[in-house]
Amino acid sequence: MTTLGARLTHLARGQVHLCFDWAPALTQQHGFIHAGMMATVLDSACGYAGLSVMPLEAGVLSIEFKINLLAPAKGQSFRCEGVVLKPGRTIVVTEGRAYAIDGDQEKLVATMNCTLMALENRPGIAAV
Amino acid sequence: MTTLGARLTHLARGQVHLCFDWAPALTQQHGFIHAGMMATVLDSACGYAGLSVMPLEAGVLSIEFKINLLAPAKGQSFRCEGVVLKPGRTIVVTEGRAYAIDGDQEKLVATMNCTLMALENRPGIAAV
Amino acid sequence: MTTLGARLTHLARGQVHLCFDWAPALTQQHGFIHAGMMATVLDSACGYAGLSVMPLEAGVLSIEFKINLLAPAKGQSFRCEGVVLKPGRTIVVTEGRAYAIDGDQEKLVATMNCTLMALENRPGIAAV
Amino acid sequence: MTTLGARLTHLARGQVHLCFDWAPALTQQHGFIHAGMMATVLDSACGYAGLSVMPLEAGVLSIEFKINLLAPAKGQSFRCEGVVLKPGRTIVVTEGRAYAIDGDQEKLVATMNCTLMALENRPGIAAV
Repeated sequence: MTTLGARLTHLARGQVHLCFDWAPALTQQHGFIHAGMMATVLDSACGYAGLSVMPLEAGVLSIEFKINLLAPAKGQSFRCEGVVLKPGRTIVVTEGRAYAIDGDQEKLVATMNCTLMALENRPGIAAV
Repeated sequence: MTTLGARLTHLARGQVHLCFDWAPALTQQHGFIHAGMMATVLDSACGYAGLSVMPLEAGVLSIEFKINLLAPAKGQSFRCEGVVLKPGRTIVVTEGRAYAIDGDQEKLVATMNCTLMALENRPGIAAV
Repeated sequence: MTTLGARLTHLARGQVHLCFDWAPALTQQHGFIHAGMMATVLDSACGYAGLSVMPLEAGVLSIEFKINLLAPAKGQSFRCEGVVLKPGRTIVVTEGRAYAIDGDQEKLVATMNCTLMALENRPGIAAV
Repeated sequence: MTTLGARLTHLARGQVHLCFDWAPALTQQHGFIHAGMMATVLDSACGYAGLSVMPLEAGVLSIEFKINLLAPAKGQSFRCEGVVLKPGRTIVVTEGRAYAIDGDQEKLVATMNCTLMALENRPGIAAV
């Protein structure tokens, strides 16, 4: 997240928003944010949302995610929202939405579906 | 791809390999490659594989992809393979595999399924 | 849909609900609705939602879908909702939710993400 | 599987084939096999493949799957192959391929990616 310059702008139980600004290093050849970069931030938003419903000492690991790219990610800044659809002892299912913010306009540009596995007592990999 | 330091190591009709080395900026908190970074390179490998079966002037756009993370992406370098499962006039379906290379060991660490849309005569967005 | 006994219970622009009742032929070995059957109805709900935003003569084809199974599909009846996330000339992205209804309780049991391709002037395959 | 008339034609450790014949009840309006039906059989092939790598008393549950529909499922019979990509104590990742058989021609018509959760000591839901 440091590499991408993303910041946590909202945190509630099962809900996380991460925001980041347009930067040349995050773009593909037309100046839009690269799909993989958007996936990276959405995946993190989903992972933090998962962590927020779990015991403090637990960790989560993404086991799979799917992203649909609805429109070019074009804007000054971007908000990636992660929300928990179903908490579980072992499996936590989350959903993400990415919005491009261009002046006072917001546009849904990507959706994610992400499955997390909860990890307990496995310190070596105990976090997103 | 420049940001990630990825290089094209194999290119045939419908088949592309991209390789990159471990670097601190690409990792999550345990020193493994971040899932989103792996997705970025796999998505690019799939996109280039799609381009390789299309007319020169055409472009492709990922409309969706899904990644399964099978094992921590731990190694000195990584090879992401993209292959075309089904070429088509409008839709090209591709598959990706990511291998972690650790000394003389290789391990499958992620698989991707990626759907591309072919773009013709749309210069503004005519490439991955 | 005839095989499954599903019926259309709601239709608005970009929104479709299909309902069906529990029946032995739709279940797996524990008496819950089989995941594939749920996928069938959700896919249809998404397809009809896509059709509802398109010109009358057009058709749609699912090119891919993903389903997350959140809980056993246990109940007397089931409601599958399909909604259009993004209409498009070529690609229509939709989302589905399946609810199990057990007495006066409703429970979200599955979510779907489905990508449709619009078909025009191709009578042979011009519908879901 | 009884409802669909599917039969097990190959079983090895981590590999399962299920075959079924064309039948009117399995089709959509153009006489091709409905995507949801294909998903049902592919999901079962993946589930059985997962079971084949697990202890006898264990069960598996699909937690999510994604299917890509590459071509209309047109033929006299169909073979759905499930294979284990990664066995695991908790999570088993599998892949499926569906082929349409038309005379002496075979065609890849769908691919699946399916994540299973292993269940132990939970008799009520201890199988696909």
